[in-house]
Amino acid sequence: MICSFFIAPSLQAKEHPSLILTKQGVKDIRANLGKLPVFDNAVKQVQAQVDAEIALGIDTPIPKDYSGGYTHERHKLNFVMAQKAGTLYQILQDEKYAKYVKDMLFQYEAMYLDLPVHPKPRSYARGKIFWQCLNDSNWLVYMAQAYDTIYDYLTAAERKTLEDNLFRPFADFISTGNPQFFNRIHNHSTWGNAAVGMIALVMDDDELLERALYGLDDDGIEFGTKDDDGGFLKVEGQKAGFLANLEDPFSPSGYFTEGPYYQRYAMYPFLVFALGMENSRPDVGVLQHKDDVLIKGVYALLNLSDKKGEFFALNDGQKGMSLMAKELVTAVNTAYYYGDQDPTLLSIAADQGTVLLDQSGLAVAKAIEAGKAKPYVKPSVNYGDGPNGDQGGVAVVRYGDSDLELVFKYSAQGLSHGHYDKLSYSLFEGGDEVAQDYGLSRFVNIEKKGGGNYLPENASWAKQTIAHNTVTQNETSHFGGDYATGSQHHSDLYFYESNNDAVQVVSATEVNAYPGTKLHRTMAVIKDEGFEKPFLLDIVRIDGSKRNQYDLPFYFNGQVLETTFDYEQPEKLAALGDKNGYQHLWVEGVSKPLKSDSWQFTWINEAKYYTLTSSADKADQVMFTRIGANDPLFNLRRDAGIMIRRDKSKDTTFASVIEPHGAYSPVTELSLNANSSINALDVLQSDDDYTAVKITTVDDRSIVFILANSDASTSKKHKLKAGGKTYKWKGAYYLGS
Amino acid sequence: MICSFFIAPSLQAKEHPSLILTKQGVKDIRANLGKLPVFDNAVKQVQAQVDAEIALGIDTPIPKDYSGGYTHERHKLNFVMAQKAGTLYQILQDEKYAKYVKDMLFQYEAMYLDLPVHPKPRSYARGKIFWQCLNDSNWLVYMAQAYDTIYDYLTAAERKTLEDNLFRPFADFISTGNPQFFNRIHNHSTWGNAAVGMIALVMDDDELLERALYGLDDDGIEFGTKDDDGGFLKVEGQKAGFLANLEDPFSPSGYFTEGPYYQRYAMYPFLVFALGMENSRPDVGVLQHKDDVLIKGVYALLNLSDKKGEFFALNDGQKGMSLMAKELVTAVNTAYYYGDQDPTLLSIAADQGTVLLDQSGLAVAKAIEAGKAKPYVKPSVNYGDGPNGDQGGVAVVRYGDSDLELVFKYSAQGLSHGHYDKLSYSLFEGGDEVAQDYGLSRFVNIEKKGGGNYLPENASWAKQTIAHNTVTQNETSHFGGDYATGSQHHSDLYFYESNNDAVQVVSATEVNAYPGTKLHRTMAVIKDEGFEKPFLLDIVRIDGSKRNQYDLPFYFNGQVLETTFDYEQPEKLAALGDKNGYQHLWVEGVSKPLKSDSWQFTWINEAKYYTLTSSADKADQVMFTRIGANDPLFNLRRDAGIMIRRDKSKDTTFASVIEPHGAYSPVTELSLNANSSINALDVLQSDDDYTAVKITTVDDRSIVFILANSDASTSKKHKLKAGGKTYKWKGAYYLGS
Repeated sequence: MICSFFIAPSLQAKEHPSLILTKQGVKDIRANLGKLPVFDNAVKQVQAQVDAEIALGIDTPIPKDYSGGYTHERHKLNFVMAQKAGTLYQILQDEKYAKYVKDMLFQYEAMYLDLPVHPKPRSYARGKIFWQCLNDSNWLVYMAQAYDTIYDYLTAAERKTLEDNLFRPFADFISTGNPQFFNRIHNHSTWGNAAVGMIALVMDDDELLERALYGLDDDGIEFGTKDDDGGFLKVEGQKAGFLANLEDPFSPSGYFTEGPYYQRYAMYPFLVFALGMENSRPDVGVLQHKDDVLIKGVYALLNLSDKKGEFFALNDGQKGMSLMAKELVTAVNTAYYYGDQDPTLLSIAADQGTVLLDQSGLAVAKAIEAGKAKPYVKPSVNYGDGPNGDQGGVAVVRYGDSDLELVFKYSAQGLSHGHYDKLSYSLFEGGDEVAQDYGLSRFVNIEKKGGGNYLPENASWAKQTIAHNTVTQNETSHFGGDYATGSQHHSDLYFYESNNDAVQVVSATEVNAYPGTKLHRTMAVIKDEGFEKPFLLDIVRIDGSKRNQYDLPFYFNGQVLETTFDYEQPEKLAALGDKNGYQHLWVEGVSKPLKSDSWQFTWINEAKYYTLTSSADKADQVMFTRIGANDPLFNLRRDAGIMIRRDKSKDTTFASVIEPHGAYSPVTELSLNANSSINALDVLQSDDDYTAVKITTVDDRSIVFILANSDASTSKKHKLKAGGKTYKWKGAYYLGS
Repeated sequence: MICSFFIAPSLQAKEHPSLILTKQGVKDIRANLGKLPVFDNAVKQVQAQVDAEIALGIDTPIPKDYSGGYTHERHKLNFVMAQKAGTLYQILQDEKYAKYVKDMLFQYEAMYLDLPVHPKPRSYARGKIFWQCLNDSNWLVYMAQAYDTIYDYLTAAERKTLEDNLFRPFADFISTGNPQFFNRIHNHSTWGNAAVGMIALVMDDDELLERALYGLDDDGIEFGTKDDDGGFLKVEGQKAGFLANLEDPFSPSGYFTEGPYYQRYAMYPFLVFALGMENSRPDVGVLQHKDDVLIKGVYALLNLSDKKGEFFALNDGQKGMSLMAKELVTAVNTAYYYGDQDPTLLSIAADQGTVLLDQSGLAVAKAIEAGKAKPYVKPSVNYGDGPNGDQGGVAVVRYGDSDLELVFKYSAQGLSHGHYDKLSYSLFEGGDEVAQDYGLSRFVNIEKKGGGNYLPENASWAKQTIAHNTVTQNETSHFGGDYATGSQHHSDLYFYESNNDAVQVVSATEVNAYPGTKLHRTMAVIKDEGFEKPFLLDIVRIDGSKRNQYDLPFYFNGQVLETTFDYEQPEKLAALGDKNGYQHLWVEGVSKPLKSDSWQFTWINEAKYYTLTSSADKADQVMFTRIGANDPLFNLRRDAGIMIRRDKSKDTTFASVIEPHGAYSPVTELSLNANSSINALDVLQSDDDYTAVKITTVDDRSIVFILANSDASTSKKHKLKAGGKTYKWKGAYYLGS
């Protein structure tokens, strides 16, 4: 870990551009123009956008709107276009682009000093151009690049005007002017730090650079203060600045504690400032910080996306964000060029269909043109969470390039964007959700929905435990839904197995979500020759200190085909409860008394069949639910769930199998393999020592999975008599017949 | 119209193959093998399928299952594979394919005579191999082709055995053995007729051919008898046989009265038998019958699909069926080769990615390879319904290749698959449903859902008027939901305008759905420079003889963003009514008293924005509904609707605009043009003479649309003073400011 020290001033006068584009980079790019289709197309696309904006004329309206409103979107487009125009100026050496950037910057210069804080009051750190400092920082990150590209086009006097009246006061406003924003460990601060650092590099201002890297010495913020999302501004022992932000949220493997949606967003300022430092001040070693964690972070991001390239919606993630995002173009190009020239990254770059207009994009375009691209096959991964990777984690289970992807979350809270969903999971087939995570309740940038900001249902539903595929005890969320409590804890890995061709396992425990109750969940993705596809065996063992009610929901998409239990639809739909998310669930069906020791539910989604087989306690109630109660503005999706309720239980085990099978085509109208291959699922035994589960197939074979509950070591020998048979094995689990 | 006459016997001994593949066709195909990628790939695909089946071995199980069950699917696969194997035998001249067909036919021969009728009782015409004669007929249509291809491979004695013990008794069973199936005007009979006709051509049996073309003379069926779907088996004056089936359901323009989903299904036997006749008995002129209606029918089918190539779900159509269906490969190849070699058909064939393995497929593959393909741009069309095209119709409005597609249905009942939805419509943008037609309530071939057959909710919901985007009076369906009554009537075109660049209009009336009430609906798709995209103006004028309650629902997909009216979500959800489909609608929201003369509702679907603007009567109730009440087995989709209820009204007019605008990207998170361009919508006047509607835009322009209600002639001059302004125009409508 790098300590805070005053960095040595740079020794020679800066050349420009040098921040992202370099002088040598420009030279190489110009030498290759017309030779590399991917690069040339990227230039053409950018040129078309910028030319259209130049034709429209520059508008820098007086700020007044939230996200989605005109002034917000206009200013956002301005900084994006200025950065692009500056790049085009360098690459094409056409002065109209430099003039466009210059004129725009001077329009901002003319207004900035007189601007009051933004009139919209919602943010804990209001900006001037935008309603929050976060967006002002976005502006500066891009404008610093734009300024760098036209630096030599401007006279010294012009530069002085811009720096005195715009850039320096701008940097001050988002840092010393808003320490509660600048001095956090949070993606907001990362943007702020990077913004200040980047303009510092262009202006060659070591004081600002110091501030960017190490934060404000004295921010005057009290410990425990919260932002408007409920996140802490400052906790004891907290460092600040860019390097601290790089240190804290990333685990050594590159996992970002808020999840991939935010990592994608945060990666851009992390990478772009690290590249600026690499180009201007390689002596500080920012890009190599924490054992190359930024490059590792790029791989983590890629691996936390589904087969369609969309990020898993952990925590407050908005669904649909994907590897096609512009931040990922930066990430992939950077990881290729500044990393090990990994040819599998090129296939992703090729899918993205565009490259950065700098030396890294040039390298990628050259390599693609040279036919070096290889497929990127996402592996099974198990990422530790927390600065040292020891605060739980997130595992993704895959069999090579097969369609099934399991995401198991046993991580820490994930800062203010975290959900109360310890040991929850989601499951995908070919990128389609089989067991969905709701994601966030927000329509980012859609002004008609609460100004594009978080909706009340994000707290009342999306963050609550019952909104997730995990256990809720006594209708209260994990940690009582208390952020301060949740932030102190994380789940713990029990073991992870990814080297067995017949089964991959991830198993973790949670003892703090409900004091007095230990949750132990084990997810085994089993490949068995009698099954068309791999299936998921899900075992939740609960060790309670008193009798509780346990609810285990399963949120699916698509259409109910069949259940082996009887149920009734209520004549009127009522909410399942009145708080902790339960108030948002309509009850669409309630099982009649169960008649057998296991039951099945088959559904169809995206033309593929699925069966959930679950071991039953005869007293279980199985309910069909639908999201949407107490949601008068239709802020929530009307999505379906099936939920097992087991009341008055102390120690108990839920065992389920999620089995993808078959397919239907609405074009050929052929239905293939619409039936489950499972006949029954039984828990043979479950206690402190062992949990043994038996799957009986329709062709009457047995698949037995046994978990050693108190010793996960790979070398430990076990022997268990269960279901009239004796099993012997070595290690944490047994899989056999 | 061709009259029933005994056809002249064919003069020379038949050569084989001659039914679909011809001897010359085989010669040409073999000469081109290895030269045409599309054709070669098609051969390879078929070969892979057939080889896999040959490796599995032949199974002809004792019939016992409904659709979706093993014996059903196995026998279905058998006839498909036999046809393919026979074709491969001809093309590749590899005897293993002939032997496979021969062995399979003899397995059927060995069992057929002893087979009882199929044990499943649901059909009005049970088959032997399948639960309904319809599927037995499918079998014979394919097996006749298979037999033709291996005819010369068999000895005369083998042929006699097959014909005596299998083909002739099979043809008799589905014709004289099931006149209630064979002698109808229905797609079932078309299959039966074609099946008998095709085996007749192969066996050179003129008596069977006569039966196929002209039906049974004396079927012994009483008039008014119904099938298990509620369709009539026989009505007064009904002819029978293939030519009558060709005569009746097709309008002169090629529209098929049951709608495109059934036309697609019916086209195959129509075309395949017509081709068989064209190849073997061109003297009868079946393919040219009714002024080339079969070729016209192919174009009608293409034009009744959306931008994604999926058929509009008119009547009992299953969504997702598309131009990719194998029947459409036949249709497009046939229309190309036996029609005018229209190069725009080639682009569809190229999308299909495969061709028929016969002379027509060869011609298409050659033309594609020669680069002759041109884009197929679907036009606006207005197809009359009924044998003479004068029983109402279906119009599709498009602006060239633009994304918006309006489907307006003012047709006849559509036989037993018809819905009670006079003057209903659906709207698409880029193939995504904006205003959806529910389609059918059935999961074709998915055995877990009622054996893959119609579900009870098809009658209780999908056929009911309230399930459609049209007017329901007093909570009863059109014609009281009575099939006999509905079958006697059709709506009438008022006028259709497709030659105006600024607006396309279709207007129709319905006076029989509710005796005493005249419904007049006009849909104008307007292109206005102030709007980003074309929008739909929908005017429903109702002329009642007493005070009624009128409900006008609008079924949308996606998420509610905003309404300009206030509404409340009930604490518990209850069904809107207890019959006629109303029992299936939950009420999710009810408007508070409306405060202005028009209201708006904005939603987002598939990342595109839409606003519904509606002129209001202050007493209107606007309701949010969701399908799913009284649906204990989840047979219905939980789809959303918004409904205007206008009670105690006699003469009244509903005017609405559906306005597509803008877009959202979850990847860039950019929101564009999320706001409607409309400020208000007012009905200035509506009486027997004129309906005048004014749209006021957000930039305060007026768009006035006036409809002459009593004279649609294009030459009639009109003058109207409305809203303080005088309008003069010629023709049925005025559009201006």
